[in-house]
Amino acid sequence: MNAQVLVLMGSENDMKIMEKAAEVFKEFSVKADIKICSAHRSPNFLHKLMEEYKDAKVYIAGAGMAAHLAGVVASLTTKPVIGVPLSGGIMSGLDALLSTVQMPSGMPVATVAVDGAKNAAMLAVQIIALSDENLAQKLKEARAAQEKAIIAKNK
Amino acid sequence: MNAQVLVLMGSENDMKIMEKAAEVFKEFSVKADIKICSAHRSPNFLHKLMEEYKDAKVYIAGAGMAAHLAGVVASLTTKPVIGVPLSGGIMSGLDALLSTVQMPSGMPVATVAVDGAKNAAMLAVQIIALSDENLAQKLKEARAAQEKAIIAKNK
Amino acid sequence: MNAQVLVLMGSENDMKIMEKAAEVFKEFSVKADIKICSAHRSPNFLHKLMEEYKDAKVYIAGAGMAAHLAGVVASLTTKPVIGVPLSGGIMSGLDALLSTVQMPSGMPVATVAVDGAKNAAMLAVQIIALSDENLAQKLKEARAAQEKAIIAKNK
Amino acid sequence: MNAQVLVLMGSENDMKIMEKAAEVFKEFSVKADIKICSAHRSPNFLHKLMEEYKDAKVYIAGAGMAAHLAGVVASLTTKPVIGVPLSGGIMSGLDALLSTVQMPSGMPVATVAVDGAKNAAMLAVQIIALSDENLAQKLKEARAAQEKAIIAKNK
Amino acid sequence: MNAQVLVLMGSENDMKIMEKAAEVFKEFSVKADIKICSAHRSPNFLHKLMEEYKDAKVYIAGAGMAAHLAGVVASLTTKPVIGVPLSGGIMSGLDALLSTVQMPSGMPVATVAVDGAKNAAMLAVQIIALSDENLAQKLKEARAAQEKAIIAKNK
Amino acid sequence: MNAQVLVLMGSENDMKIMEKAAEVFKEFSVKADIKICSAHRSPNFLHKLMEEYKDAKVYIAGAGMAAHLAGVVASLTTKPVIGVPLSGGIMSGLDALLSTVQMPSGMPVATVAVDGAKNAAMLAVQIIALSDENLAQKLKEARAAQEKAIIAKNK
Amino acid sequence: MNAQVLVLMGSENDMKIMEKAAEVFKEFSVKADIKICSAHRSPNFLHKLMEEYKDAKVYIAGAGMAAHLAGVVASLTTKPVIGVPLSGGIMSGLDALLSTVQMPSGMPVATVAVDGAKNAAMLAVQIIALSDENLAQKLKEARAAQEKAIIAKNK
Amino acid sequence: MNAQVLVLMGSENDMKIMEKAAEVFKEFSVKADIKICSAHRSPNFLHKLMEEYKDAKVYIAGAGMAAHLAGVVASLTTKPVIGVPLSGGIMSGLDALLSTVQMPSGMPVATVAVDGAKNAAMLAVQIIALSDENLAQKLKEARAAQEKAIIAKNK
Repeated sequence: MNAQVLVLMGSENDMKIMEKAAEVFKEFSVKADIKICSAHRSPNFLHKLMEEYKDAKVYIAGAGMAAHLAGVVASLTTKPVIGVPLSGGIMSGLDALLSTVQMPSGMPVATVAVDGAKNAAMLAVQIIALSDENLAQKLKEARAAQEKAIIAKNK
Repeated sequence: MNAQVLVLMGSENDMKIMEKAAEVFKEFSVKADIKICSAHRSPNFLHKLMEEYKDAKVYIAGAGMAAHLAGVVASLTTKPVIGVPLSGGIMSGLDALLSTVQMPSGMPVATVAVDGAKNAAMLAVQIIALSDENLAQKLKEARAAQEKAIIAKNK
Repeated sequence: MNAQVLVLMGSENDMKIMEKAAEVFKEFSVKADIKICSAHRSPNFLHKLMEEYKDAKVYIAGAGMAAHLAGVVASLTTKPVIGVPLSGGIMSGLDALLSTVQMPSGMPVATVAVDGAKNAAMLAVQIIALSDENLAQKLKEARAAQEKAIIAKNK
Repeated sequence: MNAQVLVLMGSENDMKIMEKAAEVFKEFSVKADIKICSAHRSPNFLHKLMEEYKDAKVYIAGAGMAAHLAGVVASLTTKPVIGVPLSGGIMSGLDALLSTVQMPSGMPVATVAVDGAKNAAMLAVQIIALSDENLAQKLKEARAAQEKAIIAKNK
Repeated sequence: MNAQVLVLMGSENDMKIMEKAAEVFKEFSVKADIKICSAHRSPNFLHKLMEEYKDAKVYIAGAGMAAHLAGVVASLTTKPVIGVPLSGGIMSGLDALLSTVQMPSGMPVATVAVDGAKNAAMLAVQIIALSDENLAQKLKEARAAQEKAIIAKNK
Repeated sequence: MNAQVLVLMGSENDMKIMEKAAEVFKEFSVKADIKICSAHRSPNFLHKLMEEYKDAKVYIAGAGMAAHLAGVVASLTTKPVIGVPLSGGIMSGLDALLSTVQMPSGMPVATVAVDGAKNAAMLAVQIIALSDENLAQKLKEARAAQEKAIIAKNK
Repeated sequence: MNAQVLVLMGSENDMKIMEKAAEVFKEFSVKADIKICSAHRSPNFLHKLMEEYKDAKVYIAGAGMAAHLAGVVASLTTKPVIGVPLSGGIMSGLDALLSTVQMPSGMPVATVAVDGAKNAAMLAVQIIALSDENLAQKLKEARAAQEKAIIAKNK
Repeated sequence: MNAQVLVLMGSENDMKIMEKAAEVFKEFSVKADIKICSAHRSPNFLHKLMEEYKDAKVYIAGAGMAAHLAGVVASLTTKPVIGVPLSGGIMSGLDALLSTVQMPSGMPVATVAVDGAKNAAMLAVQIIALSDENLAQKLKEARAAQEKAIIAKNK
């Protein structure tokens, strides 16, 4: 499995949010695979996937409610893990945000906003770009384009 | 390992809360073992413990912050798992409560109040008493004693 | 009344949530009766029901808003009581969750997620299965089927 | 029992808050009795007390955590019931406030602020004063004295 | 103005909630007048109304957002004031609830649930019934009818 | 009364927070008077003060809990009113913040942070400086000094 | 740029809320310009706008989510800055409110309610009216008209 | 400036939390510089620092209250920015967490727990280790040591 990023989500219902990450990876030509895998309901499959994708550089995990997926992934690797809390619990995702971000010492999960799959992917691209000058240049161009687009809206 | 209950907690700092469970098991003469084991920092040890204690009837897991321990235990057994959310996160344990109680379909965690180790143990005793008439009788006596104690306070 | 589980709810409006419990009991062939009974508006009827169903093994109570039903049931039995907080109050069920789970010492309510009637029933089945090997086996098979279903979704 | 007000609290630990109610009743010469009685741990004693004090005009119930006491009292009378949510739960009393105030239709609990035993008693005095002109006059004098005291602080 | 109850609300938009109070007063034959009056936008009109209705026994005030109306009414009378927090603010009425219930010492507002206009009226009827035996009897009958209705739903 | 700013607070207990406003006014040589006056407990005194200080340019009102003071002041003037929510309620001042900031249309209260008396005064100075060039210059100098102080801390 | 007020918003999606400010400025004949400008995505454009509009008297900034815009504007001027927290984050705007109002010492943002663009403009008008008697008179007339309109609704 | 990581904090009061990041960098021999710099009070100094440290690989920003620092840093670079929300606001850091994590599209901030400076540094080390095999090996060893330490506590 030669993907640079493995994107995991707990349920196929999360696809409509998590596919925004896929669009970013496509835009920046970063190879990423997406898998459905629950920390609780498919623990053996999760271990198998993490073994298969042990050469990925970054892991992204999207989960809602108790939102344990990113944390369990973090316990199985020492590479950067990005957590995407998903809305759906009784506190509009605040519950998932706290369950994702409040990891014990030594076991960080880089957390983005609730349903923030796009920014999770942007962060993964920024991390990979540290050792890929071409990608770093693309990020700078995308940033400059953003400001131009806003200025244009005022005309 | 012939304990009827396995009590797990994520850190030795949780002992001052979780030992209240031990007191209940002692009072009702129910054999219970207590272990320190983090879902994130010692995932292999957790699997080993769950295998060793596969004949326990009830599992109790106390954890704070992201509070994934009870959920991970539930993913490794089909017996009743009782979760004790522990205070300590930024929302006084509400974060741990939501992370413990909001489990996915088919994977319940019987949740008690924040820092509610005593009631977690009482619940375990109630479950075990369903097939132990002697224990059931002790529970009824303890209940009756409670009301008498309150009436006495008004005199 | 030879039901193993008595399911109570405070209002007929709660039926659309609580009937998910009934589906689980049907799937696992566990005999359960469902009754509408308010802790506040029909206190005498509640006492009568608890007397009629004194041989049940587990009680499930679903209630929203002030959500006192599970607590009152717990005060009338020493058997396991499972509380299902129902959404509908001003805090999307968080109010009912806290009112259900924060019971005084010695009086536990095994609480599941807001509107978590399915998991309440699963928990009841797990408890009953402790003294029913056939039922325990069914639980293990259902669990294994869950993981297979998730793996299949990735194909 | 010829008290005009029955003040109940769930535990003797609540006395330091609830005794502020007693001070108000003393100041306004309204006869009130205070009892310790838990809705969950002494349900029979609660029924007995409510029968004994069936001629009281107003009931005040102070409780924290799940805070069911005022609601249970309301289910046993059609006279005004005043609820005092007590702090102590994980949300600084907000949990008790919501558990006290969110009663079902037809079953009101007149709720005051968290730990607001003094205002609970003031409200009881206002209610009783509707049919006691002497008491009504005392209330007006106390109100006028309050404004004078504030003006004096600016000198 | 010989109404026994004055019902105030801050805006005509609140009528769809507050008219539930009017239905209760009609059912129990209690004379009540309803007025639209904002504490902030019509302070002089509020003073004028309170003077006109100085012989009312109970005041009910419904307000949302900053929800100052009940508090201002309480500062203008020593009779019982019932506050109905209305939903509409950013916290689904929790903001209005806290703004209504957290009154300073000596200035109680008897608070009911968010949008709880019906229970506000029930509470007013309970208060008035303390000196009206006929009304007290009607309340008892309504209560008994509630329990019968619930029992009937189980048939 | 020729003060440019009238600072009001609901209780003398609020002085330890509100005196930080006085320090700012002293630093910038802006004349300000401070008064203790409760919206609920001294409504007549509040009207008298607002009449006396009708030539002030800005009003600052600090209040906690139900926190109605700034809103009532705003209903009595069309000049800028700055609200300082004070901590002390059950939600650490969030309750007071929402009660202060959520004013009805046409009746703004310029709200600062909980216990933010210093910034309330800074805002008043900024407003007054719009027609006082000398004061405007002082504000610019204070701002520049802030940045220098931070740079110095890194040496 | 001779506008008295510069209104900024982080995205064109915010226009439907922020245009309510424009209506107020039109009603009171106050010259105001509206611009779309993100603190994060167009930082250079923001500096350019603040330089162009350095003679404005008041700045209004509307932003949601992390809601940094008003704070960044405040760091670039010593004139009054009014912040409008916009809904859209996971806490219905409470997140934006706290991000807008909790500014460091010496750097106030005059905050209005979530989505309170109308009151932000009213506050700006009140500030400008301090040195414009004609405008001050219009404000008084608008206020008196409000009370008349409410009284009329009761007829 | 040849540091691999630039650590920023808004105030010298934040040092007691942020120095935990420094300890991690020392343990893993990663060169990091720490600077005090406020987004609001020293905006020019912040731009100067970001220019000086333009060759750093990762930026860490710790801020409380409105907590804009990480966001402003993110707007000035396309490299990974890690945000550490600091406690101190009225919601125990939840306010800072939401202000840090809820960034607009295309502008991620990798957020860790409130006061999570240690995990922020661990995450930076994980990112840098992607192109430093020696460092990657050290991370694996530290992880294995954690599990051994927990097992030892059970003996």
